[in-house]
Amino acid sequence: MVAPRPADLVVTEVRLTPVLVADPPLLNTQGVHQPYTPRLIIELVTAGGATGLGETYGDTAYLDLARPLAADLIGRSVTDLNGLAALAERMRGPSEPAGPDGVDAAGLRGVRTAGKLRRSVRSGFEVACLDAWGHAAGLPVHALLGGALRDRVAYSAYLFYRWERHPDGPGEPDDWGAALDPAGIVAQARRFADRHGFTSFKLKGGVFPPDQECAAIRALAEAFPGRPLRLDPNGAWSQRTALQVADELADVLEYLEDPVSGTEAMAHVAARTPVPLATNMCVTTFEEIPEAVASGAVRIVLSDHHYWGGLHATRELAALCRTFGLGLAMHSNTHLGISLAAMTQVAATVPNLDHACDTHYPWQTEDVLTERPTFRAGHLDVGDAPGLGVTLDRARLAALHRRWLADDGRYRDRDDAAAMRRADPGWTTPAVPRW
Amino acid sequence: MVAPRPADLVVTEVRLTPVLVADPPLLNTQGVHQPYTPRLIIELVTAGGATGLGETYGDTAYLDLARPLAADLIGRSVTDLNGLAALAERMRGPSEPAGPDGVDAAGLRGVRTAGKLRRSVRSGFEVACLDAWGHAAGLPVHALLGGALRDRVAYSAYLFYRWERHPDGPGEPDDWGAALDPAGIVAQARRFADRHGFTSFKLKGGVFPPDQECAAIRALAEAFPGRPLRLDPNGAWSQRTALQVADELADVLEYLEDPVSGTEAMAHVAARTPVPLATNMCVTTFEEIPEAVASGAVRIVLSDHHYWGGLHATRELAALCRTFGLGLAMHSNTHLGISLAAMTQVAATVPNLDHACDTHYPWQTEDVLTERPTFRAGHLDVGDAPGLGVTLDRARLAALHRRWLADDGRYRDRDDAAAMRRADPGWTTPAVPRW
Repeated sequence: MVAPRPADLVVTEVRLTPVLVADPPLLNTQGVHQPYTPRLIIELVTAGGATGLGETYGDTAYLDLARPLAADLIGRSVTDLNGLAALAERMRGPSEPAGPDGVDAAGLRGVRTAGKLRRSVRSGFEVACLDAWGHAAGLPVHALLGGALRDRVAYSAYLFYRWERHPDGPGEPDDWGAALDPAGIVAQARRFADRHGFTSFKLKGGVFPPDQECAAIRALAEAFPGRPLRLDPNGAWSQRTALQVADELADVLEYLEDPVSGTEAMAHVAARTPVPLATNMCVTTFEEIPEAVASGAVRIVLSDHHYWGGLHATRELAALCRTFGLGLAMHSNTHLGISLAAMTQVAATVPNLDHACDTHYPWQTEDVLTERPTFRAGHLDVGDAPGLGVTLDRARLAALHRRWLADDGRYRDRDDAAAMRRADPGWTTPAVPRW
Repeated sequence: MVAPRPADLVVTEVRLTPVLVADPPLLNTQGVHQPYTPRLIIELVTAGGATGLGETYGDTAYLDLARPLAADLIGRSVTDLNGLAALAERMRGPSEPAGPDGVDAAGLRGVRTAGKLRRSVRSGFEVACLDAWGHAAGLPVHALLGGALRDRVAYSAYLFYRWERHPDGPGEPDDWGAALDPAGIVAQARRFADRHGFTSFKLKGGVFPPDQECAAIRALAEAFPGRPLRLDPNGAWSQRTALQVADELADVLEYLEDPVSGTEAMAHVAARTPVPLATNMCVTTFEEIPEAVASGAVRIVLSDHHYWGGLHATRELAALCRTFGLGLAMHSNTHLGISLAAMTQVAATVPNLDHACDTHYPWQTEDVLTERPTFRAGHLDVGDAPGLGVTLDRARLAALHRRWLADDGRYRDRDDAAAMRRADPGWTTPAVPRW
């Protein structure tokens, strides 16, 4: 056996390509998805000729941090992930928020902090390093994380209230049609189940008054008896409303996700209902864990390898959840196949992944890969192909990058409230609790 | 660059070699070290011809678990560390303790549980897998853990009250002489400082009444002004005694280690002194962390990659400590150079290693390596040699194994109280609190 030289693993080139990706008019409590959403595609090349792909958020604040980090990576080994983390922690980007109090522009990932921005950017580079290392070593990324414990990873259908078309132009039309009531949600769920085999369902709530959303969940329970159901109003409810909904849906909910805003309010609700509470808003960083543990605010943490800082950080979060008896599942923001592959690789290595992972991916009609990952019976195969097991399609990447270049600034920063104002000029981000 | 075939990383052979290693007559609250202490040396060979070394406790209960685990490893990849952990968790050894209430025979590592036994055995195999993987990949073990953050790791001088010779036979004589009073401890510390450059000092206490041990610490403080000092009576004191000692030595102690037994008593003491409390007795497993965190029982966790389950588990513990604002350092039991190299490799990767690591290694005159690691200015270099960077000396291994084979059962299980009874036939393990 010929051991590769460590010098072959040194990064010689990093390419950053921001893209705009088509996104349907999916509704949430802050507004509506834009017709196009920004993502950043990262490519690494090593001295030995191995290439690695990574993906993260593509808004301006992320790009501003990614550029200097890319330059700093040149000359470092793709194995030096602790060094990458330290490098990212020391970074200061030109447009980072001043303090920990800014609200995320996308609004749905908890409080936006400089640290979370840095970790999200670092995550994309870490994934690219692992992909390149895997290619060089002939090993899948999961092997670099200690090895897969399962050969497939379960995903959940992510149901959205949605319009048929975007209000401010065509975007990229699809054939899903509108879903604005229980029947529409059930039809959407059926299509997800038929097409991808999903057997658990999450409804993005906080869009309509709670009784309408409860009716949708109830309709799903009737259409799919015994299937795990989740409802996520992104913190839009009062504690009183949250407890009413929990009481009404206790017999069918797998968990209730972020019914209220903030750890203290979550703890108040958690203490008064047997329905498990999950979050990707009040526990989104390691710093937020102690208060949540002490107050019993959540039973399930929805990890997101982007803002937790990468795949190793996700495994550390999993160890924390095991230690404190918290459940673990995975959150998703709009993402492409590179991040889906990264989610699948790390999910395969986590012993305590207790629930199917969320993913927006079926809503994304565009990707930068030569081949789209295929859900079978609601699962993705983990596989043993080197690295992430995905291949970049340069023509598609170039096309989506041209869209970003041509954009007049309208979509380069995701802003669901601004998108909503194009339909409803008087719209402002609703104050919480909204109901 | 030629990527090795993953098939090359499959384990084809595992050799287990129990050894008895000379140990000086070091005193602690339970008794005295035996003349010989059991360790287990693990060798792996992969299909590609790479070899890996691991080391763990060698008492009978560990051997009984290691044998079936070794058999189960054949045919698995050295990268499959999560699978190894799962395999070890499912094991049942013939001589494992019935429940979580047994006290460790060696007495100084906290409560002995079946889980901790399994994790200690798994740890030796994990290190051997990482060493073999590193050799195959041309990478140091630290690179397989995300990369070193420092090029050397600080160790602390581990001072012991000791006799000149063992009471029950010669053992392997050394020229350290007895150390049974403050002057003897200071002389020992000077020799450690002169020979290895150590600049922090830990005294194993719980041997003499606390005022004598306080006098020894005070003498060290005068001999080495400003140097970090630690005192560890292995839980032998009452809360009242612990607080008196903390008060008396507050100006010179870096921390006080396990002054009292049990998390509840530690919390009581911690709440009443500004002196940081450290432990390797009341927090020795992930299961013990929540109570310790909730009660504020400890400020510093002394990790031990053996009983925490390996190098990846040590990194998970480090993440837990970062999250909850706990300090981290490293505990040591009697060990050889393989474990010392493993400690150094993982320590190099942990950002929050806040204190110099303990090690018994300078007391060990025997080893199974061709070359002993060398402390320089109290540090060990991390290095970039493949794997652990150590080489097995088969002749030495065989000699120490012959000693184990020839043993009549007297030393195959470490028992410091039994060793003490050879000097003092009426000796029994003292009840705590002893003072």
